[in-house]
Amino acid sequence: MKVSVLGATGYAGAELLRILYNHPEAEVVHITSESHTGEKIADLYPHLRGLYDMTLESMKEIEAIGDDSDFVFIGLPHGHAMEVGRAMAGKPVRIIDLGADYRFADTSVYEAWYHVPHTHPEAERVYGLAELYREEIRNAKIIGNAGCFTTASILALAPLAKQHLVDVNTIIVDAKSGVSGAGRSAKQANHFPELYDNFRAYNVAGHRHTPEIEQAITDLSGEKSIINFTPHLVPMSRGILATCYARLRDGIASELVDAAYEKLYGKEHFIRLLGRGAYPSTKDVRGSNFCDIAWHIDPRTNRVIVLSAIDNLVKGAAGQAVQNFNIACGFDETAGLDYVPMYP
Amino acid sequence: MKVSVLGATGYAGAELLRILYNHPEAEVVHITSESHTGEKIADLYPHLRGLYDMTLESMKEIEAIGDDSDFVFIGLPHGHAMEVGRAMAGKPVRIIDLGADYRFADTSVYEAWYHVPHTHPEAERVYGLAELYREEIRNAKIIGNAGCFTTASILALAPLAKQHLVDVNTIIVDAKSGVSGAGRSAKQANHFPELYDNFRAYNVAGHRHTPEIEQAITDLSGEKSIINFTPHLVPMSRGILATCYARLRDGIASELVDAAYEKLYGKEHFIRLLGRGAYPSTKDVRGSNFCDIAWHIDPRTNRVIVLSAIDNLVKGAAGQAVQNFNIACGFDETAGLDYVPMYP
Amino acid sequence: MKVSVLGATGYAGAELLRILYNHPEAEVVHITSESHTGEKIADLYPHLRGLYDMTLESMKEIEAIGDDSDFVFIGLPHGHAMEVGRAMAGKPVRIIDLGADYRFADTSVYEAWYHVPHTHPEAERVYGLAELYREEIRNAKIIGNAGCFTTASILALAPLAKQHLVDVNTIIVDAKSGVSGAGRSAKQANHFPELYDNFRAYNVAGHRHTPEIEQAITDLSGEKSIINFTPHLVPMSRGILATCYARLRDGIASELVDAAYEKLYGKEHFIRLLGRGAYPSTKDVRGSNFCDIAWHIDPRTNRVIVLSAIDNLVKGAAGQAVQNFNIACGFDETAGLDYVPMYP
Amino acid sequence: MKVSVLGATGYAGAELLRILYNHPEAEVVHITSESHTGEKIADLYPHLRGLYDMTLESMKEIEAIGDDSDFVFIGLPHGHAMEVGRAMAGKPVRIIDLGADYRFADTSVYEAWYHVPHTHPEAERVYGLAELYREEIRNAKIIGNAGCFTTASILALAPLAKQHLVDVNTIIVDAKSGVSGAGRSAKQANHFPELYDNFRAYNVAGHRHTPEIEQAITDLSGEKSIINFTPHLVPMSRGILATCYARLRDGIASELVDAAYEKLYGKEHFIRLLGRGAYPSTKDVRGSNFCDIAWHIDPRTNRVIVLSAIDNLVKGAAGQAVQNFNIACGFDETAGLDYVPMYP
Repeated sequence: MKVSVLGATGYAGAELLRILYNHPEAEVVHITSESHTGEKIADLYPHLRGLYDMTLESMKEIEAIGDDSDFVFIGLPHGHAMEVGRAMAGKPVRIIDLGADYRFADTSVYEAWYHVPHTHPEAERVYGLAELYREEIRNAKIIGNAGCFTTASILALAPLAKQHLVDVNTIIVDAKSGVSGAGRSAKQANHFPELYDNFRAYNVAGHRHTPEIEQAITDLSGEKSIINFTPHLVPMSRGILATCYARLRDGIASELVDAAYEKLYGKEHFIRLLGRGAYPSTKDVRGSNFCDIAWHIDPRTNRVIVLSAIDNLVKGAAGQAVQNFNIACGFDETAGLDYVPMYP
Repeated sequence: MKVSVLGATGYAGAELLRILYNHPEAEVVHITSESHTGEKIADLYPHLRGLYDMTLESMKEIEAIGDDSDFVFIGLPHGHAMEVGRAMAGKPVRIIDLGADYRFADTSVYEAWYHVPHTHPEAERVYGLAELYREEIRNAKIIGNAGCFTTASILALAPLAKQHLVDVNTIIVDAKSGVSGAGRSAKQANHFPELYDNFRAYNVAGHRHTPEIEQAITDLSGEKSIINFTPHLVPMSRGILATCYARLRDGIASELVDAAYEKLYGKEHFIRLLGRGAYPSTKDVRGSNFCDIAWHIDPRTNRVIVLSAIDNLVKGAAGQAVQNFNIACGFDETAGLDYVPMYP
Repeated sequence: MKVSVLGATGYAGAELLRILYNHPEAEVVHITSESHTGEKIADLYPHLRGLYDMTLESMKEIEAIGDDSDFVFIGLPHGHAMEVGRAMAGKPVRIIDLGADYRFADTSVYEAWYHVPHTHPEAERVYGLAELYREEIRNAKIIGNAGCFTTASILALAPLAKQHLVDVNTIIVDAKSGVSGAGRSAKQANHFPELYDNFRAYNVAGHRHTPEIEQAITDLSGEKSIINFTPHLVPMSRGILATCYARLRDGIASELVDAAYEKLYGKEHFIRLLGRGAYPSTKDVRGSNFCDIAWHIDPRTNRVIVLSAIDNLVKGAAGQAVQNFNIACGFDETAGLDYVPMYP
Repeated sequence: MKVSVLGATGYAGAELLRILYNHPEAEVVHITSESHTGEKIADLYPHLRGLYDMTLESMKEIEAIGDDSDFVFIGLPHGHAMEVGRAMAGKPVRIIDLGADYRFADTSVYEAWYHVPHTHPEAERVYGLAELYREEIRNAKIIGNAGCFTTASILALAPLAKQHLVDVNTIIVDAKSGVSGAGRSAKQANHFPELYDNFRAYNVAGHRHTPEIEQAITDLSGEKSIINFTPHLVPMSRGILATCYARLRDGIASELVDAAYEKLYGKEHFIRLLGRGAYPSTKDVRGSNFCDIAWHIDPRTNRVIVLSAIDNLVKGAAGQAVQNFNIACGFDETAGLDYVPMYP
């Protein structure tokens, strides 16, 4: 399959190139960047030297790129993918957007949280969280790849929501991410000495991944869910740990919780269930498409605490995009993704 | 005042020596270590070279140490301080224990969580969280210095508890600490390559700081409080950020929350109120005795989210001990502690 | 090919398992650990969960392991591999030792620096630095895989030595390594808070990689070389940067230096020449078998300064071992090693 | 004494404010910033909240600032201090420039390396490396505070140069610095994910601290010295370690080397001699004005290797400035600087 990467100079774009390099069925035919058009990708990312000799093109040639490609991966800021989607509407090329434009079934939610009008609301699209929406992904024309925090959070909570084990309005997700999640652009706040040996929260009660988690929990449980989501910045490069709290419904035995996880994920390659009482670590999944999950039940408060760890650039972005690509193409779901996390 | 430090080779002990070096009223007369008796402290902590020429003694001389000292700071694992307390019972020397032995009014709670019998239950003791128990500390013989996580958590929640603004059984504290909180002993889990670029939780639903927070919230609010407390390990040396969640009682306006913080802490030197909507960072308090606090109110869920940052070795241990010492001696409360955090 | 890993619980052993997982021609049949015999490797290294279900065996079964295996990789402390080598002497199995036992042509040098008698001096062995000793490696029975610092240093200096461009007695190698190079055993010195935000040298004028570098420079240049080698510990997990100084012989033009690198390495897949005036970074090679090299010439002092970057666990240990394995088996030299470094 | 800080928003400026806060004889009367004129310093550096309520002024009022101040500390990029110096020429106010403008006795060296004409070559000025030029500093009008790398390097090498123990043309300084040395301005290269878990060199054979070291070695030894200086960036916030190499003159016994260090530094408060064979660490001096020094002699190569550690923002900038200020004012040299490094 011929694939192109629009917005290849962000961290997610570069990670796509890393993963696609070893994909047995994909060939990268175009990569784009508006700010670096004409430059070699290996000059911007020297780790690619000797492996990618490609030159960045402009999206002005989007029509031609669309004609050349079976699949287009989009790693652009929100607002751009829907323009690409419109331009590609009549072509056979299929789209995986790593941004938020196609994640919401209800575009008014998108518009309320992202503060831009949605220009492609009629698009047929599916939510690209592979383990939960696999069937929908198979034949999708446009896949709205799930966000990084949301992937960790939804995968952690889905068995509880689906089996109605918790009150979905008591959910609190306290999430922690490495700094690569903030993108490659230099900002004062992410200047090395400012963050090193430092820890802080941001976007409390206002992060845009909140409605995305709510959409999935509401969909899975059949009950309207309003949650709290709090992101934090960890002084490290990669990795997300989500600590999820919810109150168990009365009379739910621990074994029912265990069974819910086993039932939903027991056969999933990329979800590793560590079991009740265990502790996932971001480093155990570093560089990989795994999501490690464990859960704890506190009989004193009757709350369940679920811990999930992913690599924000892999299962939280590029890896999940390739997993969705594999599903959408009918390939082995692990193609290009079957390797060992990098530890230590 | 002549002071001694029992267990001077742990991080909290060394931090006490750092702070006491510039204390205008304190002179360190004895330092002890059972595993390093006879060694120079500066050989174990080369940063002290040229500043401390003292030799570590054994606690076997505890009687003499007690006779020599006006105050004894104890930086020993739990279970040891109560033995010291018993030995000192008849002497004028006063005690500040940085461990847990004297933190609980109800020793059965201590015994249930620490799994050892309390051998000094009759001791008159006060809980050493300076801003909240200042009057009790003034004349105390034995001060049970508040724990690191608990200091950050209780200071964050106290105004809400005291003013009855939240349901004290909806409290969740999701806390994150630098690795120095785990002590100086080398362990596989805290080996550098294992933690670097890594993030994880530990002791979910079982950490011993849980009942300490509950004791204070119950005391301040007058209502029995059962909470969830979840600690995490951040790949950095120092600092704690506590993210505290609670459901507001119906009809509580945001301004009431603001006013509660202002009322309780408006005149406190070591508590810096950043206000509603702000973000404390651990680095902004690094090396100092400050506790920076901010709060957020989510109208969608009617929860208040409070963020507090401290240096776990200072306000969470040695600094607070010196603050308590100052109060207990009638010194200016900032003596030895009035300096600028180290940034960046 | 059936391969076994002796000493699989060290970082180099675990890294071998990571790389071999994707090797098209290798099957891991035995893994050993004396301290963890009977345990699952995935319990010691949770990142391997779901990927390796193997149980650690004891080396007491070394005969049977040898009979089962075409190749044995040894990740044991020095002194053990030569015992394995003796035990395997009569078997067809071939050996790649990641330790020092088989690195020295002159065992008296080994004995002088490692302070143990060499019990297998008669072994036919080759020095396992693939780019420089490829022909010897092809048919070797025993390969003494080059050390981590030595790989970075020798690859940096080889063109200069081979072309007689520098005075080989003016060589100084100032090298910096991530902490994984010190192994997985917890030690006080490598306890997280001790190293974080810290930098120091160690083993000045006494590190055992010194004679290994000297052996290669002497061999390549035909002149006896005595050098200074100084290792430092960088507060990061992986990566080595070697900064190598040497005085150019009189009248050597910069172009001659450029040409020497191009001639020796121009066609090497795993050596990426960044050219004169450039700067390699350890992160650009992280997780990969690449060695990135650049050089600078200072006309004021007539010295050449060569910079080389490797991942100490890959090109400096497990990756180079697999590269040697590929050469020794006649496989494509990049088999199992042709993937993109992990950045950021 | 009334002091002002020009360019107070850089890391060195903020560090000056940290140190001056506890100085018994200094009162900060003005702080300036052109890009943040009118803003509160505590809004830019929240760690100063509650401690500094000052507002940043513009340098346009430089005349008035000069009239108000006994001493002006300048933390501006090179080229600006000489303009300030000219404007202050007729006033009694004295100047300590933390930049390079007044470091060179020969302004043509400055002009050659800094690529700007020197507009104040007639200024009477002294080189502000306190331990070596104390007498000159006492009565200086203008002090060119030594640079960070240069302080570590010159202090390490001075005893060898002064006692003619080494060939001053064989000196190589391989130095490593935390990222705060690069300043507070956000740049792509110093973006957190780019540097974390990464190590690299920069400015090989061209760093501007090279001629500053040469000037001092030439001055101390009486012999023209040309050296190599190579800086590296360590993924940490603070600290410099300099590894210095030089060839011993024939017949120099180790004891002579030891004696040279003892003679020059034996009574210095801020220089801690760890002795022959020891290892300084940057963390042992963190936050302090100490310079820790150790040396090693390699009989195989007859080279001496000197290791020195400083905090680049303290002994390498703000701390040394205050030390020079103390000397220049006749205060106790340790005023404001007599405290314990922050470890861990």
